Amino acid sequence: MLQEAVIERATPPAGQQTMPDVPAPVGGERPRVVILGAGFGGLNAAMALADAPVDITIVDRRNHHLFQPLLYQVATAGLSPAQIATPIRRVLAAQKNVTVLMETARAIDPKLRTVTTCTREIDYDYLIVAMGARHAYFGHDEWEKTAPGLKTIADATDIRARILTAFEKAEARQDPAGRAALMTFIVVGGGPTGVEMSGAIAELARQAIVRDFRNISPETARIVLVEAGPRLLPSFPETLSAAAARQLEKIGVEVRLGASVIACDEGGVTLAGDARIDAATVLWCAGVMASPAASWLAVPSDRAGRVIVNPDLSVPQYPEIFVIGDTAAVLAADGRPVPGVAPAAKQMGRHAAVAIRSKLAGWPSQPFRYRDFGNLATIGRKAAVADLGRIRLSGFAAWLLWSLAHLWFLVGYRNRLVVFLDWAFAYIAFERGARLITERSER
Amino acid sequence: MLQEAVIERATPPAGQQTMPDVPAPVGGERPRVVILGAGFGGLNAAMALADAPVDITIVDRRNHHLFQPLLYQVATAGLSPAQIATPIRRVLAAQKNVTVLMETARAIDPKLRTVTTCTREIDYDYLIVAMGARHAYFGHDEWEKTAPGLKTIADATDIRARILTAFEKAEARQDPAGRAALMTFIVVGGGPTGVEMSGAIAELARQAIVRDFRNISPETARIVLVEAGPRLLPSFPETLSAAAARQLEKIGVEVRLGASVIACDEGGVTLAGDARIDAATVLWCAGVMASPAASWLAVPSDRAGRVIVNPDLSVPQYPEIFVIGDTAAVLAADGRPVPGVAPAAKQMGRHAAVAIRSKLAGWPSQPFRYRDFGNLATIGRKAAVADLGRIRLSGFAAWLLWSLAHLWFLVGYRNRLVVFLDWAFAYIAFERGARLITERSER
Repeated sequence: MLQEAVIERATPPAGQQTMPDVPAPVGGERPRVVILGAGFGGLNAAMALADAPVDITIVDRRNHHLFQPLLYQVATAGLSPAQIATPIRRVLAAQKNVTVLMETARAIDPKLRTVTTCTREIDYDYLIVAMGARHAYFGHDEWEKTAPGLKTIADATDIRARILTAFEKAEARQDPAGRAALMTFIVVGGGPTGVEMSGAIAELARQAIVRDFRNISPETARIVLVEAGPRLLPSFPETLSAAAARQLEKIGVEVRLGASVIACDEGGVTLAGDARIDAATVLWCAGVMASPAASWLAVPSDRAGRVIVNPDLSVPQYPEIFVIGDTAAVLAADGRPVPGVAPAAKQMGRHAAVAIRSKLAGWPSQPFRYRDFGNLATIGRKAAVADLGRIRLSGFAAWLLWSLAHLWFLVGYRNRLVVFLDWAFAYIAFERGARLITERSER
Repeated sequence: MLQEAVIERATPPAGQQTMPDVPAPVGGERPRVVILGAGFGGLNAAMALADAPVDITIVDRRNHHLFQPLLYQVATAGLSPAQIATPIRRVLAAQKNVTVLMETARAIDPKLRTVTTCTREIDYDYLIVAMGARHAYFGHDEWEKTAPGLKTIADATDIRARILTAFEKAEARQDPAGRAALMTFIVVGGGPTGVEMSGAIAELARQAIVRDFRNISPETARIVLVEAGPRLLPSFPETLSAAAARQLEKIGVEVRLGASVIACDEGGVTLAGDARIDAATVLWCAGVMASPAASWLAVPSDRAGRVIVNPDLSVPQYPEIFVIGDTAAVLAADGRPVPGVAPAAKQMGRHAAVAIRSKLAGWPSQPFRYRDFGNLATIGRKAAVADLGRIRLSGFAAWLLWSLAHLWFLVGYRNRLVVFLDWAFAYIAFERGARLITERSER
């Protein structure tokens, strides 16, 4: 999750001045830019248009920007929601050319250049679609109920309640089989989120809550990480995949590779080959599906629903629409797909802003180039892997780099300080500060 | 919310040794003490029995002890839930004679000496009922939907979402009347919670979010505190009631005394005399009703459902059952009822523990004596009132005292530090750190 410090600017192509390929709005008004989504992509697009002569409306169904890379820490009781979320209005308060609207987008009419939300229609001259992705169940949406995924704060507090409630129920349970199922946690998917989640549950069980129970021994909890492919972290070099598996096993996570889930119900999971694991808690970290932008725009998309964009991130047929972040399918210079990570979304957001500036100035837009500053995944206390191209780290050095990088990029100085203190405290005391089971439905 | 430092001990009455009035359990086992509720009363009872030769089971439907005096700060985005809540297991982890059960109590059979929860029956030799109270609508339970009260973390995050969403909707709303209703906040009830809540909403609107909107001016929000009686804070001296009203008006709260609510609906509130206030947000801080213990035990209760207890806090007919905290109706030495505040609940919890020790030792139990160390209510940044008997403070000095007292009594050193930093930051920057609108239902 490293990020470049360079701020991109619209620059005229060497030796040429062409006509704009998008007409300026009539009536001398400032062009209207609508941004759907205030994640890393949308927010960076808005900020990169701070001094542009445009009127920006940023639309998000939630009032907060979420630092998603740390969401698993909310789900495992390490951090509070407010520590990784900042009100969108607060971030953009000083940027006078932005209006923030908390609304849910429902449709786009690219011919009329209109976005429809639950309460209104919003006209645009330029549109940036940055609505991210949600977890996907590969045709088994019925699994969501028993195996929730992790994308929003509500997801995270729900998962937190499930994990903590499983230990509470195990403490009260008499029969050994029921108790064993309550103390088994299955994480499906060996990508970064699955690795981080299973490592964090292992540490929760073996350290933070280990002295708090009378009838169970939380350190005997079974945490199983199930991955259908041949190795963890497929986007990392193989040596780091192996290092991650070793480090997970060291803190007590059972790693099952080449294990496909063929059924998922309230009692647990069935793997291909009919192996059955009984578990009260199953968490889904196995796949994502892009927002429905492609179907709204009626343009081609890939299997995960991502819009196949032009090199400059605009949409075929609609040069005034840009699709970025997890909603876009983009290839990097090496021909591999740009990964669905925060730095890529940020870079695309800034690129879309620069492309709009170029078009406003009458210059052609440039192709997007993904700058890969490395790849980090954490495993637990003092354990992580880092792929920085030529340099590959695992263990404590990688963890230190991961901690510093994440603290640095947390939006807002205050959150940085509070999260630092929480981590420092957790590091010293093996404590988890946010062990709350809260439920709306309890009233 | 001040508290004595004295730890009470069971002491034999001067010059006499009587027989225990409760038989010791058969079979030589240790007496079983069951405590229902892990609020201030129940938790302090458990801790005061730490070195007693008893086996304690503490039952709570939630996994956390809540520092309720600061709950209004969660509801107004000043603090995060985890900052005022600590897992019950964590608090009691080192006390080996306690088992914590997260279960919902459903009934008590005082003849069989059994508590029934959703999943089991628990036998007791001594029972301490400390299940607190919930807000009450005086026969208008249908008002709860439009005018929620504040007792749990779920209540607080729900109210927080309502307040913040009202501003979001006002920003998007075009018609002046609709916008005015969205920017009107009615707090019903002029006790400490109503005073604190209305003051905190005023500060949120006029300071924390004042620069974040484009179409509305949050500082023009109308906050109305409605009290049926002739003055605010009826448990305080009249001079402090007047001081509280003055300080509230200074920060922009409209105080309406002698105003009874006769109707309450989605559009606002109707007061006696047919005065109507249109408001999208109505909050209920007007009354409490005790837990259903009195009806479970089939013993006499007062109008608010509180069990009328013996002078030693035991229940008539059942010397082995103690009822404490907001579930008990107790008179202080001056003949006035003991208030439903945290210090009173703590004192009662410790008293019940001492009474059980006395009975175990064969001594008669002593009457409960409430020690009033003062009464504090905060109004906002740098404003509060404090009644310390002969000393009465208002304004900044009272606020400082209130801040120190609350920090001191927050359970857990870590929470104290984090809350202190949050407050320090909010004080310097007029910021509110927990401005999240989160909803389970959004998935």
